[in-house]
This record gives sequence, C-alpha cells and structure tokens, in this order.
Amino acid sequence: MEDRKKRTEIASMGEFGLIKHLTENLPDPNESTLKGVGDDAAILNYNNGKRVLVTTDLLMEGVHFNLAYCPLKHLGYKSAVVNFSDIYAMNGTPKQITVSLAFSKKFAVEDIDELYAGIRIACEQYGVDIIGGDTSSSLTGLAISITCIGEADPDKVVCRNTAGSTDLICVTGDLGAAYMGLLFLERENKVFMQTGLRPDSDDADFAAKSYIIQRQLKPEARKDIIEALARINVVPTSMMDISDGLSSELLHICKQSNVGCRIYEDRLPIDYQTAVMAEEVNMNVSTVALHGGEDYELLFTVPLEMNDVFQNLKGIKVIGHTTKPELGCCLIGRDGLEHNIVAQGWNAFPEKEESNDNDEAEDDSELKS
Amino acid sequence: MEDRKKRTEIASMGEFGLIKHLTENLPDPNESTLKGVGDDAAILNYNNGKRVLVTTDLLMEGVHFNLAYCPLKHLGYKSAVVNFSDIYAMNGTPKQITVSLAFSKKFAVEDIDELYAGIRIACEQYGVDIIGGDTSSSLTGLAISITCIGEADPDKVVCRNTAGSTDLICVTGDLGAAYMGLLFLERENKVFMQTGLRPDSDDADFAAKSYIIQRQLKPEARKDIIEALARINVVPTSMMDISDGLSSELLHICKQSNVGCRIYEDRLPIDYQTAVMAEEVNMNVSTVALHGGEDYELLFTVPLEMNDVFQNLKGIKVIGHTTKPELGCCLIGRDGLEHNIVAQGWNAFPEKEESNDNDEAEDDSELKS
Repeated sequence: MEDRKKRTEIASMGEFGLIKHLTENLPDPNESTLKGVGDDAAILNYNNGKRVLVTTDLLMEGVHFNLAYCPLKHLGYKSAVVNFSDIYAMNGTPKQITVSLAFSKKFAVEDIDELYAGIRIACEQYGVDIIGGDTSSSLTGLAISITCIGEADPDKVVCRNTAGSTDLICVTGDLGAAYMGLLFLERENKVFMQTGLRPDSDDADFAAKSYIIQRQLKPEARKDIIEALARINVVPTSMMDISDGLSSELLHICKQSNVGCRIYEDRLPIDYQTAVMAEEVNMNVSTVALHGGEDYELLFTVPLEMNDVFQNLKGIKVIGHTTKPELGCCLIGRDGLEHNIVAQGWNAFPEKEESNDNDEAEDDSELKS
Repeated sequence: MEDRKKRTEIASMGEFGLIKHLTENLPDPNESTLKGVGDDAAILNYNNGKRVLVTTDLLMEGVHFNLAYCPLKHLGYKSAVVNFSDIYAMNGTPKQITVSLAFSKKFAVEDIDELYAGIRIACEQYGVDIIGGDTSSSLTGLAISITCIGEADPDKVVCRNTAGSTDLICVTGDLGAAYMGLLFLERENKVFMQTGLRPDSDDADFAAKSYIIQRQLKPEARKDIIEALARINVVPTSMMDISDGLSSELLHICKQSNVGCRIYEDRLPIDYQTAVMAEEVNMNVSTVALHGGEDYELLFTVPLEMNDVFQNLKGIKVIGHTTKPELGCCLIGRDGLEHNIVAQGWNAFPEKEESNDNDEAEDDSELKS
C-alpha cells in the first residue's frame, strides 16, 4: 500500500520461517493459554467454571475488503476485532485467536508484517492471545480466517433467542457510520481510478469525514459496554452485535425469541458525519442507520423495569421495545406511522456480483496502485 | 464434478437460507457442546478436567486441491479429517469443528451440498460436532477454513518437544502413498487436458492404483491408534502427524526436543502400490516415503524399554531411535551408510508457483470439465 523500499519474497523465508517471524515475541499469554503456536494444536485450560465461546470469520479480498483503500494494518486490526465483537455479543470475554492467512505472490513479507501488526495490536488492546493458525499461498488475493475463543460465566452468557415480549431494546454508540465511511472511500477510490489523481488524505474533505472513515477501517468491539453492564450487574435478556445492519439483527432477535418489536425513528443514534454523508449521497439517514452494516455496536434487550437506569447510561440508547409476536416488527416513523422492518443489510451472496471468475483485473492492481 | 440435472444458484437462497439448509438435522451433539450453530458464538462446556486443544487449517483451491480430480464430497471429508488428525497427534479426541467456506459463482448450492456432505460424514464417523462457521462469496475459487476443538487428559497430552534421547521412533500405517496417489491423479488429469479423453475410473490402471488414490482423496486420521495406545496404557513421549512428509516432521520433533535420530531405510513402511507407482514415475521409493506428504499417519516416540511391545503392534512400525543431539539426524541406508535427513516435503510457498494472479484460466475450468 505505502511506497516501500524493501520487498522480501515470502518464498525466501519459507512457511516455518514466516510463522516464526510473525509470532516471535508474543506477549505473556492469558491464564487459560497453556501452549500457543508451535505444535499440532494449542493447549488451553478451561476448567475455570466458565463457558467456552467459539466464533469464526472468513474474509476474502475483493468481497470483504478492498486493498485499494484499506491499509493492511487496519485490515488486520479489523479482522481480529470483528471476532472479539461476536464474543462480547454473548456477554463474554475474548481470550484466544487462531489466524489463518492465504496470500498470492503479489504480497511480500513486509505486507504480511503490516497485516499481522494490526492483528497483534488488536490482540494487545483487548487482551487476547494468538495461539496458532495456518499460512499458505493462494492463487489470487488474500484470505483471512480468524477463529476466536472466549469465556463467559455460565449464568451470564447471553443468546439471541431469550428476549422477553415486554423488554426495552437498546443499541450502543451510533449507527450507519461504517457504511457511510465505506461509501466515502469507494467514491474517492473511483475518482482516483478515473483521474489517476490520488486523493490527499490530509485535505479538508477527509478531515470532515474522519469519524466515518475510522468507523469503516478501524472499528472497535464494545468491551467497554460489556464491562459497564457487569459493573451495574445487568445481564441483558438477549444480545447480538450489529454486523449486518440493525434491521437484520433486530429481526434475528425477534424471530429467534418469538417476539415482535417497535423501534422509533427519532431514537436511532446517528452521528453528525453520518448524517452529512447520507445527504451528500442522497440517502435517507434513517435508512442508513437501519441497514448500514459493520458498526459492530451491540443490540440488546433488558427488562422494562430498567427503563430509568438505561435512559441515562452513557453510550447506550433505548430505541424501542419488544412486543407480542403477533404485532410484528415495526419502525415508528417521525410521522407516527408504522413501517414494517425489512432486512436490507449486508448480502454475502449478491445476485449481481461486481466481479466473476473470469474477471480478475481488480485483484492484481491493488498493491500496485 | 458429476453431470448434474439441477443447478440452484446460491444467491437464490441467501446466506442464512444456505446456512440453515446445510446445518439442519445435525446429529445429537457431544456432551461438551451446549449450543452450536445459530448465535454470535457457539457455547461449550470444558469444565470436565480435560485440556482444550485447538487447531486450524485453511485450504485454497488451486493450491491445496484441484477440483478437476478431487470430488467435492471427498474434499469435504478430507478437510475435516486433516484437522482431526492434528488433535489425535496431541493424543486427544476431536469434539467440535467450525466450518468457514467462501466460494465463487461457479459453485451452485448442489456443489456446496456435496462438500458439506463430506464434512458431515467425517464428523459422524469421528464423533465430532459442527458448531458454527461462516459462508460467503469469493472472487475466485473455493476457500475452506476449518477449526477443530478437541480434548485430552492433562497428563496425557503429547507435544513435539518432549522426546527423550534414547527413545524408539515409531510410525503408523505406511508412507508415501498419498503422494503417489497425487502424482497418479495429476498424470491422468494431464492426459485428459491434452487429449480431451476422460480417464475411465473403472479401468484396470485405476483399480491397480485404488489404494494410493484413496490415500490422496480420502485419508483417515489415526483414531484407532490413539485408542489402541490408550488400551495398552502407553503415552508417547512425543508425537505429531505426518502431513508435510516424514523427514520434515522428524526434524521438527528432533529440533524441538533437542535430540538427534537414526532411522533405517529398510524399516520404512511402504505399500506395494506406492512402490509400483514410484517405479512408474522413476522415483526412489524411500525418497517417496521420506518426503511424500499428506499421509496423516502418526510419528511418535516411546521409551526404549517398550521395544518388545512395539515390535509386535499391528499398524505400528519401529523405524529407528532418537540419539543425543550432537549425533544429528540420519537415515541409515540399505547400504549401511548414514545420510543426513533433509526436509523436502510440502512447501506452502514454492519459489516457482504454477499459477499467478494474472493467470486465472484454471480456476474457471474445473467445474466445467
């Protein structure tokens, strides 16, 4: 991505050399990590009265990320954090990850270093150990597969299917910013592709979009919220993280818990930069907040009695309540009218793909650009 | 791969529809699996006095497998089994896997069904639960990432770095067959690519190669050996599975345990079909047994006192012994001469790759062939 002096071919280092290079000097591990990298399998000890949580994500270049505007270090950070987010969404704490990477010849050791540096920073930030993985070549592009293992108290694990029918619905932070950041980066990249003029990331437009760019490129998992809930001794009745968009996740909770819901348009938490960008691209900002993915905020429900507490918690917004299932899932608009909620978030298998098996032009250009 | 009547586009089903379709009617889970597919993370209980083992593999089309001659069902089976093998290699028992798949538009729901059917058969065979995963699209080809979680008694976990300097070195089964199977399949595939004549898998040549083909396409993990060792109350002093070739794995054990070794050429276990194929391709059969990968046999060490027991155990062969480190790692040839052992097995990052980012001709042809 950056201009580089040095390019070390991965073949010159070999698989074992590369693994050693990437995983040396890892910080002291968690108590539950007995043995990490270096054997057929890692050895963990979870005889600690906790539940073990396991989640996994596979990110493919050109589908989940575009290296034309996503720096490898940020990508590494994000790849790890999105997995941590899934563990927090169970009211747990992430403890270990395995990192599998496959990369084509366009990547040098220095590129993989950048990517791995991002993963390591995320792990240090969140107190997670890298305990193993796999590295190999790929014919085209980069694939990143991370599995995260975490723990939670048996009586505090929170699932999606346990919301009550008179609960408050809460979301953390604000919504839609990551999606607006994506649209901004794609717009700038398109200008660059057409004009050859590299956008100046120091200019005023980038500064005015810094929050939404950061939300797209370097999201955080809501460790702070999970810790805050623990401090006030609240276990949500249901919870998940918002990766595919609020509407999609809300419908998951409602369907799996067999409840309906009412959420209020005027209560959707939206950042100023999100609103500005939505206007620039001529989108309704509520639509952006409802359907934009990758915010990695938490969506959860708590009993109605906690209304007073949750109306005043920093970083948490009550956006509505659950109902009996027969009332369906609706958004109450600013006009007071009810609109059925329909999932329109991230689609892993779009009908019309941007690229196909025969069209590899994009793949090769990214590191050269 | 096969001629098919039906082709269902994955986009018509959507990600959640596909996941539901693939994971419905899973058999009853292990005791340690509290909640599998369907939430942000799976929930496990390992408060059972055992150690938790974690291993992972990422397989990329065109690098780890060629769909021109590797049926999807076999590929699914193998993808799961190679992970189980890593858990057995720690003297453990595999219990759960997560399965992440990314596939390009050339794959239909029926293809993914085949792949998943192979994974499910392997899981049923070995008593392992599918507890989660990820499915998405890829720009080109198929990526399969499997993470396996297993358990072992704390006092029976076996690592690579604990061999003694006067131990017996044992291998299970026979060596080199998977590599010879690969060369045979590649040879037949080349003939097909050049002549357009599809090889007849019922013909005499295929029948005479059935064992080596099966070793390549549908390997098994040595659950039986781990169970047999438990029955006679033997815990190896060190162990790993042979995925990259005997020479490579033996050097890992010796280096990590700080010992040397002597193994004997005339004791290398070699199947008749392996020897025949080696002759056909003009290779030294001992070289094939030493360096051929993907056998998924176990390599382990036991104390010298167990010689009498291990000389007579079915499916296990004593091929040599460890030594003080200063004696180095040598093969004693049939001629009685010592040859230094050098790793020449599987290379994840070959200097000269068969394909590169610009050459995608192969990717698209496989399912059409």
